[in-house]
Amino acid sequence: MNAPTHATHLMPEIHQREVPQALIDALKTRFGERCSTVLVVREQHGRDESSFAAPPPSAVVFAESTQDVADAVKLASAYSVPVIPFGVGSSLEGHLLAVQGGISLDVSRMNHVLSINAEDLTVTVEPGVTRKQLNEEIKSTGLFFPIDPGADATLGGMSATRASGTNAVRYGTMRENVLALEVVTASGEVIHTGSRAKKSSAGYDLTRLMVGSEGTLGVITAVTVKLYPLPEAVSAAICSFPSIEAAVRTTIQVIQMGIPIARVELIDHNTVRMVNAHSKLGLREEPMLLMEFHGSPAGVKEQAELVQEIAAEFGGNAFEWATTPEERTRLWTARHNAYFAAIQSRPGCRAISTDTCVPISRLADCLLESITEVDASGIPYFLVGHVGDGNFHFGYLIDPNLPEERETAEALNNKLVARALSLEGTCTGEHGIGLHKMDFLVTEAGAGAVDMMRTIKRALDPKNIMNPGKIFTL
Amino acid sequence: MNAPTHATHLMPEIHQREVPQALIDALKTRFGERCSTVLVVREQHGRDESSFAAPPPSAVVFAESTQDVADAVKLASAYSVPVIPFGVGSSLEGHLLAVQGGISLDVSRMNHVLSINAEDLTVTVEPGVTRKQLNEEIKSTGLFFPIDPGADATLGGMSATRASGTNAVRYGTMRENVLALEVVTASGEVIHTGSRAKKSSAGYDLTRLMVGSEGTLGVITAVTVKLYPLPEAVSAAICSFPSIEAAVRTTIQVIQMGIPIARVELIDHNTVRMVNAHSKLGLREEPMLLMEFHGSPAGVKEQAELVQEIAAEFGGNAFEWATTPEERTRLWTARHNAYFAAIQSRPGCRAISTDTCVPISRLADCLLESITEVDASGIPYFLVGHVGDGNFHFGYLIDPNLPEERETAEALNNKLVARALSLEGTCTGEHGIGLHKMDFLVTEAGAGAVDMMRTIKRALDPKNIMNPGKIFTL
Repeated sequence: MNAPTHATHLMPEIHQREVPQALIDALKTRFGERCSTVLVVREQHGRDESSFAAPPPSAVVFAESTQDVADAVKLASAYSVPVIPFGVGSSLEGHLLAVQGGISLDVSRMNHVLSINAEDLTVTVEPGVTRKQLNEEIKSTGLFFPIDPGADATLGGMSATRASGTNAVRYGTMRENVLALEVVTASGEVIHTGSRAKKSSAGYDLTRLMVGSEGTLGVITAVTVKLYPLPEAVSAAICSFPSIEAAVRTTIQVIQMGIPIARVELIDHNTVRMVNAHSKLGLREEPMLLMEFHGSPAGVKEQAELVQEIAAEFGGNAFEWATTPEERTRLWTARHNAYFAAIQSRPGCRAISTDTCVPISRLADCLLESITEVDASGIPYFLVGHVGDGNFHFGYLIDPNLPEERETAEALNNKLVARALSLEGTCTGEHGIGLHKMDFLVTEAGAGAVDMMRTIKRALDPKNIMNPGKIFTL
Repeated sequence: MNAPTHATHLMPEIHQREVPQALIDALKTRFGERCSTVLVVREQHGRDESSFAAPPPSAVVFAESTQDVADAVKLASAYSVPVIPFGVGSSLEGHLLAVQGGISLDVSRMNHVLSINAEDLTVTVEPGVTRKQLNEEIKSTGLFFPIDPGADATLGGMSATRASGTNAVRYGTMRENVLALEVVTASGEVIHTGSRAKKSSAGYDLTRLMVGSEGTLGVITAVTVKLYPLPEAVSAAICSFPSIEAAVRTTIQVIQMGIPIARVELIDHNTVRMVNAHSKLGLREEPMLLMEFHGSPAGVKEQAELVQEIAAEFGGNAFEWATTPEERTRLWTARHNAYFAAIQSRPGCRAISTDTCVPISRLADCLLESITEVDASGIPYFLVGHVGDGNFHFGYLIDPNLPEERETAEALNNKLVARALSLEGTCTGEHGIGLHKMDFLVTEAGAGAVDMMRTIKRALDPKNIMNPGKIFTL
């Protein structure tokens, strides 16, 4: 999901902490021009793709090495000033906002691939390497990195939010794909978590504690991830369905049968219409599954035939195949542009995106009831989903000048999350908690579990300087 | 790996903490006959499959519910007395020993499957359910739970040690397969981690913090794991090789090509000889790979043909196929009995088992150098390996009456671990740190990372009552 709009509503509760001039001076001494206090630079680092707003950070430090990060954190720690790691700013949940003041630590210049271990199917990169850059740099190895959250996010940011996306149904999320990390702790110490071994029982799983911690426990300065052999054969297909329910029931059966489908994305008829208008396509304006199969030629054929049989049972028709890379790119670009297509469909609108994820057997119930609700509300919306994982996104397209539309959208999301939780799901499949889902987290995980998270946070970051005010307040 | 011997050597450093009679009285009041102080019961709960020994716990509480666990922990906490969770006692690393005194909390009676969600491919069980019991109870669903550490361990224990085994090469370890946990914390509070959603970005990954924490952060009282559709076709094969190197290089190539082999186990010629003697088999006494393929009939055939081609390049021959369940069971039983076969090969001996795991490209180097070393030492040994994951086990068969043999075995293991770490591997692929690998952990993870683990431990268990003295000392 991409979200190009920046807004200034829903100001989170802000307790700005003091950033002493002495710290700024010390940072300028250490980093020279790589410490900026120019307003436009600070503003650029004080927002992300969410619709939240807060005053910008007091300074931006451009780190170029782990030592830079460690030194910046040590200085910030000496003054008890918040540090907010920044990659490319594609967070959707306000992760990058200086809600308690502080400095932004931009790691986008730490964008080197450190070591490619093709024989072990692993690669180690600096945190500012983006997923597209990574795939470009490893192209000659015959391997690829599958995780695709839509935006061309950094590996550091994707680790911090436990990102996933369209390929996760087959290849897993950052949770399954990060093997090891280098992290600068709240005291400025450099630690290493995990190893390049495929598995280990050596002590607490600090790697996975850091993955998804949203910058609140440390700054990620290197990431080792798994790679996969490029499949011998790839085939993509679009299939239209008479109803969302038919598309979802097809998906459920595919997953329950254990067919190793690589991608299975739902796009509702509204969104197909928007995509057609935006990308000049002539797709049937019906609910649709966009699928991809990876494997040997025979394996791909077998998977595709099975899925076609299942789809036919639910009235799916008009399988259109895309077997050349160009055709596939066109299809997936259309999918990735769904957000932009939707925004353009209502000029001046802003999208509020949901991110619930439920066990696959509950997907139809969760989705269909929610569609009924949003249809009744009259708010325009788009709907896309990584439905093989039970994860989907409504984008409510609201007029920012009409507060009642925002209220309606918030009410719809509240009901959706409540429904997902009652179905044993989660309020966020891949975007993170950030600023806006803290209450949902307590409902979902329970006060005791959130207290355990807080206890860990306090122990590892006693001055509360690592991206404070995200996930929970202390 | 199973290990049937119990020994009394290598007493770990023991600081017995006082267990006041008032606590025993309170436990007896609360649990009646389910709190035992009978010596034989305490002794049975004061050891595991490791060769360590310590005085037995002061009492054993047989929990039958989460509330029982919570109440026992609360009472122990009130007296600052250690609590050691106990399943079936199959730990190989001293996890179950009361090295600081305390009470054993036996959860083996919490052995109910709580809910089977076949449509979502998940199941929730009490911690005392064993893997074989689980597979028996879900047989009618057409699903199975793949993780197979050899011993018929409990799901609670397997979670606590981040267990894996023969199927991990395809299906992952407990790290990848536990979706959610119920945990009684050190203060006796009940929390829930994770949900049944396949993925989530909701806050810190407490599930994976608990998985592999060896009982030091809480007592697991329910486990939700992933299940998999029973493969349509299964085929197993044995292939002999002219050398260990040829077998290992075959494995490396299979993995690097991304062939989704379900099991690939190495057995060296020594061990084949022992297995032949023990299980009355007539296997060729050469290094061997024992493999299994899962998938559609066509997929299994395709995988098997590819692997046969690769094996042939390295001189592998005499593929023997086992396609009926009975033949497969006979093969895998032989594999699982390798340990017992080895023990019987040297009457009165004791096995010291290693557990290193390295990136697959380093496997041949790590293994071959280590074989040269152990051959030179003159100590008899067996060698088996989950080589698809880069994980293997030497079992040094020492005479417990000859201290020099133990010293030699320890020296060999020290060299092996040092080698694995220098090759970016881990000292333990699946057995855990327990009592004996603490120094290795510091070398592997670094003092900073181990300090972070200790900080988490202190924060979550300020009285240090949850299985103290394991993974690290405080």
